[in-house]
Amino acid sequence: VSERLIPVVFQPSGKTVSVPSGTNLFSLMTELGLTHSATCGGKGKCGKCKVKVETGVEAINASTESELKHLLPQEIGQGYRLACAISVPPVPSFTVRTSSIRQGKLKLQTEGALVSISPDPAVRKYVIRLIDSDLPAEEMLLALLKRKYALSCQMDYEVLTMLPAAIERGKGFVTCVVYQGNTVIAVEPGDTGRDCLGFAADIGTTKVAVYLMDLNSGKELSFSAAPNPQAIYGDDVMSRIAFSMAREGNTLILQKILLKEVAHLVRDCCTKARLKPRSIYEGCFVGNPCMMHLLLGFSPRSLAFFPYKSVSHHSVTLKARELPVRLHVHPAGRIFTLPLIAGFVGADTVAALIAVRQNKPHGVQMLLDIGTNTEVVLSDEKGFMACSCASGPAFEGMHITHGRKADSASIEKVSVDPETLEVTFQTIDGAKPAGICGSGIASAIAELLRVGVIGTNGKIRGELSRKTHRVRKVRENFFEFVLAWKHETDIGYDITVSQKDVLEVQKAKAAIYTGCTLLMRQKGITADQVQSMTIAGAFGQHVDKASVRAIGMFPDVPLDRIKEAGNAAGTGAKMALISRQKREEAAHVARSTKYYELALDEDFTREYATSMLFPRQPSPMINSVEEKVESKNAHR
Amino acid sequence: VSERLIPVVFQPSGKTVSVPSGTNLFSLMTELGLTHSATCGGKGKCGKCKVKVETGVEAINASTESELKHLLPQEIGQGYRLACAISVPPVPSFTVRTSSIRQGKLKLQTEGALVSISPDPAVRKYVIRLIDSDLPAEEMLLALLKRKYALSCQMDYEVLTMLPAAIERGKGFVTCVVYQGNTVIAVEPGDTGRDCLGFAADIGTTKVAVYLMDLNSGKELSFSAAPNPQAIYGDDVMSRIAFSMAREGNTLILQKILLKEVAHLVRDCCTKARLKPRSIYEGCFVGNPCMMHLLLGFSPRSLAFFPYKSVSHHSVTLKARELPVRLHVHPAGRIFTLPLIAGFVGADTVAALIAVRQNKPHGVQMLLDIGTNTEVVLSDEKGFMACSCASGPAFEGMHITHGRKADSASIEKVSVDPETLEVTFQTIDGAKPAGICGSGIASAIAELLRVGVIGTNGKIRGELSRKTHRVRKVRENFFEFVLAWKHETDIGYDITVSQKDVLEVQKAKAAIYTGCTLLMRQKGITADQVQSMTIAGAFGQHVDKASVRAIGMFPDVPLDRIKEAGNAAGTGAKMALISRQKREEAAHVARSTKYYELALDEDFTREYATSMLFPRQPSPMINSVEEKVESKNAHR
Repeated sequence: VSERLIPVVFQPSGKTVSVPSGTNLFSLMTELGLTHSATCGGKGKCGKCKVKVETGVEAINASTESELKHLLPQEIGQGYRLACAISVPPVPSFTVRTSSIRQGKLKLQTEGALVSISPDPAVRKYVIRLIDSDLPAEEMLLALLKRKYALSCQMDYEVLTMLPAAIERGKGFVTCVVYQGNTVIAVEPGDTGRDCLGFAADIGTTKVAVYLMDLNSGKELSFSAAPNPQAIYGDDVMSRIAFSMAREGNTLILQKILLKEVAHLVRDCCTKARLKPRSIYEGCFVGNPCMMHLLLGFSPRSLAFFPYKSVSHHSVTLKARELPVRLHVHPAGRIFTLPLIAGFVGADTVAALIAVRQNKPHGVQMLLDIGTNTEVVLSDEKGFMACSCASGPAFEGMHITHGRKADSASIEKVSVDPETLEVTFQTIDGAKPAGICGSGIASAIAELLRVGVIGTNGKIRGELSRKTHRVRKVRENFFEFVLAWKHETDIGYDITVSQKDVLEVQKAKAAIYTGCTLLMRQKGITADQVQSMTIAGAFGQHVDKASVRAIGMFPDVPLDRIKEAGNAAGTGAKMALISRQKREEAAHVARSTKYYELALDEDFTREYATSMLFPRQPSPMINSVEEKVESKNAHR
Repeated sequence: VSERLIPVVFQPSGKTVSVPSGTNLFSLMTELGLTHSATCGGKGKCGKCKVKVETGVEAINASTESELKHLLPQEIGQGYRLACAISVPPVPSFTVRTSSIRQGKLKLQTEGALVSISPDPAVRKYVIRLIDSDLPAEEMLLALLKRKYALSCQMDYEVLTMLPAAIERGKGFVTCVVYQGNTVIAVEPGDTGRDCLGFAADIGTTKVAVYLMDLNSGKELSFSAAPNPQAIYGDDVMSRIAFSMAREGNTLILQKILLKEVAHLVRDCCTKARLKPRSIYEGCFVGNPCMMHLLLGFSPRSLAFFPYKSVSHHSVTLKARELPVRLHVHPAGRIFTLPLIAGFVGADTVAALIAVRQNKPHGVQMLLDIGTNTEVVLSDEKGFMACSCASGPAFEGMHITHGRKADSASIEKVSVDPETLEVTFQTIDGAKPAGICGSGIASAIAELLRVGVIGTNGKIRGELSRKTHRVRKVRENFFEFVLAWKHETDIGYDITVSQKDVLEVQKAKAAIYTGCTLLMRQKGITADQVQSMTIAGAFGQHVDKASVRAIGMFPDVPLDRIKEAGNAAGTGAKMALISRQKREEAAHVARSTKYYELALDEDFTREYATSMLFPRQPSPMINSVEEKVESKNAHR
């Protein structure tokens, strides 16, 4: 039997492949490109590779421990399994249904605030009209650059290997590509002055975004984004560090898989803009310290252990050809990273800082860059101080029962009627929901808090199950709230917020609140002194600032002083790419930011514990609801 | 028949291989490593792949035009053929005899004058005792280098990728490899301070020599040399330039084949010295302009056409890993070339100049670096002036009927008895001769001139054939002189000096003499003002300076002011490797040398024509011999 091929049908697409029985379903799906929205790489740890077995269920292997942990009893009863836990059974036909393969294009947050700064790029092109000369080719060209453009340059070695051919083909003209006004990095035949491109790349733990920029005009030409392919080696930074330490060569594996994705995105950007990747002469990278280490091939080991040191916190510049993967850009093109601030505060934060800090700042400024780690930077005339909060991935839709990354099938906004507790929800593209994303979970909890389904201690009030079917008991002392009934969804089962989900949000918001509070205390600043608070990160683009303030994510800064900057890191990367002044600013910011280690603050534990509570709501809806429920019951 | 394999026997080794009939014999020999002392690459142009067919001669293809040109009628009668002109015939067994496969190890001139200079290398090692620190690894190491050794360094990108592992394995110690006192190019675990190597390479058109040097002590540890493998694409510079221009990619072919030989020699040096190539951190290359261009992958095209420009005349530095062939040295090791003076005066001349010019020179100095191109440099307190003479390869044993490169079977010194015209010869290792090398041909002609067999016009006096069988007529008005009878040789036929050989020597020495004369005239200097004349090059090591002065190779500088420097270029390369001061001196010398283009001197043609004559001999033996011969005849 093991030699017979079993047809495996994937619903709803109907896609069918025949494989030997015993093939692991997760591996098969990965191979077919039927990827999942979240993954531990098929290790049974994340519970996100849920499928529903429709035929062949009788012959399948028994549920694993991992499935018992990640699936609800009713799901198991309905035939739901984890793809990573099952093998294709020896049956005439095996049919599975999965929602993840139907998911829309990931909504990756890549748009930053648009900023106009004058282009002052490090790479410029100079057209040279050749003359007859007895001088060696190199000398002649350098002399002409000096005479015509007052540039004192040297020439990269590799240029010399191309020079005679360029001069011969140029028929009287060549174009010199000059880096930092002092180094000729390429010479091209003819006048190619118009094509002078660069790219900015924002390397997130979960997503990678690339922006193609015109270095002459400073304009963005196209962009492209994709999930960070390192995710197959672990969802979060710590599991990737663990993977890189597990075996020599693993760091290189992580570096290469990332660079291949960057190469792919760069090509995609160029295809969109109908331009050649070879006209790209510079690339600016930002990301958290671990991503920058893995991008450059540095071991991230020291980031994982106290005192959380980086290998280098400087900006690193190298030639594209020095990378172990070809990016398709000009091989002499320069690749650089922005500097890091500390082991947990990276080039993304530096980029966000230069992006939001456009003019001379006055008064106290605060930046929150929200992600799995949330960075908080506080600045006043005395300088910068930064901390990093282990907020966890709840606001990115992870570690949440029905959480998912923001895509077209994600609930992103929720309203709850205070009277009926009925729900109105909104998905990102208006599609039927398959889960809830980070901004959705914040919105849902703010609403449940507002209407009193959740108390300040975070407890879902189980007694409300008497008033509404939406509040229901899962097990003793463990309730959930139904956001969407299964018939309203795309996945065939209810989408809920469970007590555990509320706890995840409490932990996340407590971490951020604690960071803000301790940093402000350290600087002797109160919330009303903060002149401007910028919320950056994927989260910062979609969220309703009122609702996140309502759940107590940060101190009580007046709403009109809060602004969302979207992907400020990406914006900063673009700025550093097109402006040498911004690059210097990045170096200055990184050097002059003091890192504050929250874990060493003696108030940390106490502050964190207190912050777990939700703020008291302005109009205590809760009591009125409770009263009504109780009065109804009294009438029975 | 064509499918049958024919056994081919090579004598005298007896080596046998079976190949299809129709296989070209030259290709087969090349494939088997039975290389020839000189070669045009099998194009029928050099006539040096002579073999004697012993069995199978009846079935072989007819003589080609090339063979009729390169072989003497009597040779053809005896079964001599050119390997490149014949195919393996369809016979039961095919036997050929070749002397070239028995030739001794090439005597490559690689020893330069030994000079003691204090080592002041660009690469030094510093051992660091690590401390616990909160600083990033890079910062910590740079801080310790500053504190302990007062060095302000930056770190190469690649070092950062190795740093954490080196620190972990070093158990408290690491060794920093510092280049130019300002750049950390490698970090190694533990104390590796002792192993700090470099190599110097002298890239000649015909040979490549590599010297392994200890950078700490400045001592030479081993050396290894081999023929330049580019020879299969042409014997001389011009044919290699032609090859490189013939097709895109050919320059890379020439670069790679050369680098592979360098890599082989570097390994060989390390094996001899029982040291690891990875401990080599720097390599210095010298050679003529074309060799430097091909080494670096620069197109040599512009060197071949007026105004004979180089692509770059500067010293070029790159990382070993940037070369298209791995040299097995440390990948971050630096490779550099010495600068060029002009399109025909290269890094070898610059190296020779810094080698011979050890102290402050006083008075007029003259350097002759003799090769296929001979460079002449004249210096006085006003500066340097150089020219290049197209002397041709006669003094390297080429373009000479029985010429060969210097090896154990080469005649290097000749005496002719003025009375009997009998010859005494000396081979390099005392072996039976197979031909005559450059110093041998100079010695032979000086002797024939001294005893009067050759007149000042270069004519072999045919009438002497009446006195001795050694002078014999080849065809009308064309005589040769027998140096060694066939029974005295290793090749089975007479070794002679023909009228054509004398002419080749006349052209060579006239070119050099003209260069010296015009350069001196340009500087207003006479022969007696020359305080010191140094003869460098392969030739300069073996030759009897009295005999080369006797044939009029250079102006009449007193013998005691002439010294032989051997391979001064190699010595200069070693010096530049171990001393940064010598490197600066090289830059200075290259910058301040004026190139004098002989071809533009209006006296050139006249001077050259006059110089074709040999000098009148001090004791005109010629007349007395002639008289004796005549008087003998008179007595008959």
